[in-house]
Amino acid sequence: MELVYTGKTKDVYALEDGNYLLQFKDDVTGVDGVFDPGANSVGLTIEGAGRAGLKLTKHFFEILKEKKIPTHYIDADINQATMTVTPAEVFGKGLEVICRYRAVGSFLRRYGLYAEEGQALDGFVEVTLKDDEREDPPISEDALDMLGILTKAEYKELKSLTQQIGNVVKEELAKKNIELYDIKFEFGRAGENKQIVLIDEISGGNMRAYKDGNYIEPLELEKMFL
Amino acid sequence: MELVYTGKTKDVYALEDGNYLLQFKDDVTGVDGVFDPGANSVGLTIEGAGRAGLKLTKHFFEILKEKKIPTHYIDADINQATMTVTPAEVFGKGLEVICRYRAVGSFLRRYGLYAEEGQALDGFVEVTLKDDEREDPPISEDALDMLGILTKAEYKELKSLTQQIGNVVKEELAKKNIELYDIKFEFGRAGENKQIVLIDEISGGNMRAYKDGNYIEPLELEKMFL
Repeated sequence: MELVYTGKTKDVYALEDGNYLLQFKDDVTGVDGVFDPGANSVGLTIEGAGRAGLKLTKHFFEILKEKKIPTHYIDADINQATMTVTPAEVFGKGLEVICRYRAVGSFLRRYGLYAEEGQALDGFVEVTLKDDEREDPPISEDALDMLGILTKAEYKELKSLTQQIGNVVKEELAKKNIELYDIKFEFGRAGENKQIVLIDEISGGNMRAYKDGNYIEPLELEKMFL
Repeated sequence: MELVYTGKTKDVYALEDGNYLLQFKDDVTGVDGVFDPGANSVGLTIEGAGRAGLKLTKHFFEILKEKKIPTHYIDADINQATMTVTPAEVFGKGLEVICRYRAVGSFLRRYGLYAEEGQALDGFVEVTLKDDEREDPPISEDALDMLGILTKAEYKELKSLTQQIGNVVKEELAKKNIELYDIKFEFGRAGENKQIVLIDEISGGNMRAYKDGNYIEPLELEKMFL
């Protein structure tokens, strides 16, 4: 088993059968020792954070499997904090795709002249580049196409999948009276036909969830939801 | 004649016939006393800047008129540094529409991971909000539609007009061996059918132009071109 990539919150190993193993770590992103899923550097280590993230990820990816929504997920081992996945290549040097149900965070910082804080957004999709140095800039469909990152047809598919998956997570959380404000996903191309599939994880670190108007800390979400 | 708006570089007067008069001022935007068309505050006053901007604007708007590309232009008086225009309402609180032929400026600051400085961009269009406080953020077609600023059909028309007008300016400059790198426009809705028309100005302050690889200062452009 060969270590092929060391990420901020996960290590990636190549398996002999051609699949990959994701090792979820207890490192979380943050600033000044405070957990912030939107931050671009590892801020602290919290025991059990990796397993908590994986439990939620396993839960949601298995629901998506039942619903025949394509992901890279094969299986997960909670004790080992590992997830086995099929190979997938990211778009360009990596994108984040955000689905928004309420106006908060960077959306509000950009468009606050036209949107009220907390305003309903009805599954609004936007894409940002994974680029720490340039603070993950938002990018349009036209620019993605022109720069050779994503074709127009792929963008359409990506947007549709994002809304489908966002709605699945939203409805699941709603069963526990938890409201999803926004969520970010990563996608890749898989297999010979380059099918677009959800990759990475779905955990507290990827979303803003609220209960009774109060923000739920990423690690609280696992306890509250599962 | 009633003063209805005082802008950074123009004052706007309502005329008795329902049209408007734009008074081009010698104030130019900039930072620390240096002329910077991209800046959001008035940096300095340069004698003749208003007239120079109007001369270029008159030149280009009259070419657009011949080509039947809709603008708000009626007439211009260079001596008085005034331009008469038809009424038009801006989109939301104002948009800037940028047409890019080479990767420089904010495009490169955002997408430098995927684009080389000076790379050809073939009339790439993007829209930013006029919002000094939030540093004129770029905004997508979907967000413009969702926030009620521009419909999808209007976006399509806006993009097409932007490329048509950008190409007219590019070809005109090319006749004097000047190369257009990028240009920004403002548009509005005019008349009962809310037709999309070009408004404001087309001058050195709205574009980046180069000759023999050297950037042409906005006020130099008028002397070099006309």
